[in-house]
Amino acid sequence: MCELLGMSASYAADLATSLSLFRPRGGQIGPHADGWGLAFYEDHVARIFKEPIPASDSQCLAFLQGYDLTSHTVVAHIRKANPPGTGRSLANTHPFERELDGRSWVFAHNGLLAGLREHPLYGFHPTGATDSEYAFCLLLDTIRDCVYANGRIGDIDNLLRCLVPAVSRINELGELNFLLSNGEHMFVHTHTRLHMLHRRCEVEDCNQNVRLIATHPLTDESWSCLMPNTLAVLHEGRLIRDLSTSGPAPPEAWQRHFAAMASV
Amino acid sequence: MCELLGMSASYAADLATSLSLFRPRGGQIGPHADGWGLAFYEDHVARIFKEPIPASDSQCLAFLQGYDLTSHTVVAHIRKANPPGTGRSLANTHPFERELDGRSWVFAHNGLLAGLREHPLYGFHPTGATDSEYAFCLLLDTIRDCVYANGRIGDIDNLLRCLVPAVSRINELGELNFLLSNGEHMFVHTHTRLHMLHRRCEVEDCNQNVRLIATHPLTDESWSCLMPNTLAVLHEGRLIRDLSTSGPAPPEAWQRHFAAMASV
Repeated sequence: MCELLGMSASYAADLATSLSLFRPRGGQIGPHADGWGLAFYEDHVARIFKEPIPASDSQCLAFLQGYDLTSHTVVAHIRKANPPGTGRSLANTHPFERELDGRSWVFAHNGLLAGLREHPLYGFHPTGATDSEYAFCLLLDTIRDCVYANGRIGDIDNLLRCLVPAVSRINELGELNFLLSNGEHMFVHTHTRLHMLHRRCEVEDCNQNVRLIATHPLTDESWSCLMPNTLAVLHEGRLIRDLSTSGPAPPEAWQRHFAAMASV
Repeated sequence: MCELLGMSASYAADLATSLSLFRPRGGQIGPHADGWGLAFYEDHVARIFKEPIPASDSQCLAFLQGYDLTSHTVVAHIRKANPPGTGRSLANTHPFERELDGRSWVFAHNGLLAGLREHPLYGFHPTGATDSEYAFCLLLDTIRDCVYANGRIGDIDNLLRCLVPAVSRINELGELNFLLSNGEHMFVHTHTRLHMLHRRCEVEDCNQNVRLIATHPLTDESWSCLMPNTLAVLHEGRLIRDLSTSGPAPPEAWQRHFAAMASV
């Protein structure tokens, strides 16, 4: 299992504080020691840093925390390989990236998917051995089919008409918590456990909206628990769509957690 | 105009010395101040670092020089935007990367190409505004057409049957010096100016072969001048193919340089 961290903001923001809380979970206080990755968007193109080593040991990640990187859209991941100890390689490290329609698309996943490889791939192919990258290729194949049918991807509702059924189909195979972005929108799919925090502040006379997504709340602030089997769409820190997907009910332990969070 | 640096080696080698000679050419002793980029392969997947700032000013590149990164295949680039000062952005910074056939393909280019955009693109689309990235998409479209026709890419000669005519077609449009790799092979196309250095040494009872490619020789060693309109193919530090492409004769100034180098 893995952990996800994402950010969508109205104006480029720095992620240093969240990273300092997230980083030790990758090998020091958490078991996700098989790799870490970060994607920072600059406009519609992502800078990706990743290594198949524990985040807590990485000098590169320590350097980046002090490097003053800011972005409006960030996708981060720490990995625990499954089965344990196998598959530590750059090719198996999230987030994954592909170009589609002249943009960088970035994907990070948490969960297990069975029978995924019975669905054939056409345009995109995994470079590594993870189900996560395979699922990403499957989603992009589906989106590209829509692009080919309609010229370009077009507006968000056009894209969602392709994406929601494809996500539901993969979600039926097991557990699909993911962050997917194209630099304009962040698509957050919750099957079991994801939390969201909304921060508002004024920065140089502008209203800054920041939404953080994380597998586990990183602070004592009032994180909300995202509904199972939903696809939330964030744009510049705002929640612009909140759609249902189909899929199996989450495990009972998670349902207890959800009930406890919801009753706070 | 831009400068290229590439390495192909039998065993993973570190590039720190070459980088220390290359880096000041990006803004300090050379005019290529609009961006820098580095791709290090780990097996068939590349780690890419790039920034739209002068290499000589980059703290990130300084950090990487001391980070003990080793690889069998490296592609590096420093950029001078044309027209000057325009288009400094991550999207316009080389090297560019795409996945094809389950591998990272990486491309860095030096030269100008006119009329390129009259050739339509199908599967791959540029994220930025450079002719270089457009030419890369065109090359990959051509290679993918071959893949679709034959299943998978297959052996190097199968690939070259697609690649050589595509390179010639683009080379006819102007100036096409490039490094292209898929982690297994490095394809070096020379239209005007590229130099190669072969270093041999014994490392832990193994014969290490390193071939470096650079726009300008970086050291006083005996670099050779690559023939205009040729596509050299490197594999694990060995030169395994050396093929002619068609294209315009290089400018007269370059021909004098070539004659001077050849007569040494």
